[in-house]
Amino acid sequence: MSVGVTMSATGAVQLLVFDVFGTVVDWHSGIAREVQALRPAVDGAAFALAWRAGYRPAMQRVRSGELGWTRLDELHRLMLDDILEKFDLADLSEAQKQHLSKAWHRLDPWPDVLAGLTRLKTRYTICTLSNGNIGLLTNMAKRAGLPWDCILSAEVFRAYKPDPAVYLGAAKVFDLAPAQAMLVAAHQDDLAAARACGLQTAYIERPAEFGAANPKDVSPEPANTWHARDFLALADQLGC
Amino acid sequence: MSVGVTMSATGAVQLLVFDVFGTVVDWHSGIAREVQALRPAVDGAAFALAWRAGYRPAMQRVRSGELGWTRLDELHRLMLDDILEKFDLADLSEAQKQHLSKAWHRLDPWPDVLAGLTRLKTRYTICTLSNGNIGLLTNMAKRAGLPWDCILSAEVFRAYKPDPAVYLGAAKVFDLAPAQAMLVAAHQDDLAAARACGLQTAYIERPAEFGAANPKDVSPEPANTWHARDFLALADQLGC
Repeated sequence: MSVGVTMSATGAVQLLVFDVFGTVVDWHSGIAREVQALRPAVDGAAFALAWRAGYRPAMQRVRSGELGWTRLDELHRLMLDDILEKFDLADLSEAQKQHLSKAWHRLDPWPDVLAGLTRLKTRYTICTLSNGNIGLLTNMAKRAGLPWDCILSAEVFRAYKPDPAVYLGAAKVFDLAPAQAMLVAAHQDDLAAARACGLQTAYIERPAEFGAANPKDVSPEPANTWHARDFLALADQLGC
Repeated sequence: MSVGVTMSATGAVQLLVFDVFGTVVDWHSGIAREVQALRPAVDGAAFALAWRAGYRPAMQRVRSGELGWTRLDELHRLMLDDILEKFDLADLSEAQKQHLSKAWHRLDPWPDVLAGLTRLKTRYTICTLSNGNIGLLTNMAKRAGLPWDCILSAEVFRAYKPDPAVYLGAAKVFDLAPAQAMLVAAHQDDLAAARACGLQTAYIERPAEFGAANPKDVSPEPANTWHARDFLALADQLGC
């Protein structure tokens, strides 16, 4: 449903930029699957939640300047090392740890994603806009068949979302005004930061992002331009 | 033909990075077509050569620090403004100048490119590695259907080829050693710079790059890993 601006304003959008983890791919079940492939006895769901819980603090260490510019692959490894002991995984070999730390490259898209992106791509330029590094996002897209026009990443702008440099940088790459770009994301805080920069916003529900056992609040936020169940519903709403 | 290293060395290559102007797309006939669409009386071939002749001096102005970081779109406009009078085009409207300055977004690939890239993509990650800016390369790929896995550009590294930061940066994006990446290009100087950084190199002939009337020297350079007539021949050689 359209929750905010008029059709004429959304008609000006040329670029859709997508949050990736949670919005495009199902990190929770993918990480659970990967750790259980190494160690069937581990509680995969709890492990996925614990690893992801390290994400915001790690971002903050870079944003605050405590760490210099560090790619998400390296942060994922630091975050993994922090939880290995808790899950009785400290005895994994270095090769196993390296393999597991890149599990984020091997996540599967939600079921609507390929068909939805293919429709959206007919009318819009579709790009990632993720804190994932370029190599991670490219490997993920190649494995999953995600038809991006361009991989944009925090790594291009050397700043992590929600830094305005990321949202404004994406519009500038295409010589667009912020209002000609729209962020598509399953997270209200990401959308709020994009909106503060002048981008249009589309919220995608993804109620099972944290696992089917932990349904998240997917209430509409009236400040968003669009609210859609999934990418197929967004394509319907945008007339693609 | 393989002109340099052994099969085992090339077997390690995982990433192919491509020069774009001249190697992937035919800038000479594309620019000639675009200017003649605006002004049929202009000598399109001479205009294309004159515009492209401004390229190296413009790059040098950025590399020397005389200009701060400037995207190729902006440099193309400066180079265009320098030759408008010579070709009796100074009376174009500002909208026409802007449209013409983005003609580089609308170039067509050589006839072998789509089929060749599609084959190469089955075995390798295929990326641009061009001095063109990200938006230019993305718009070009979307219009022409170029199936890149990732758009890498001087804009990502804030340095122009032949700066080593560009070649080394591309390998680093994918956590590869330089020898696991190969530059594919129709220009020996670009390949020489990549080779000096440790990348493998594939030369593509493109004898008509400067127009059929000005065939260029396409002699093999033994220092290159591969020498191929076009992308289909390269795919044959690489067993794709």
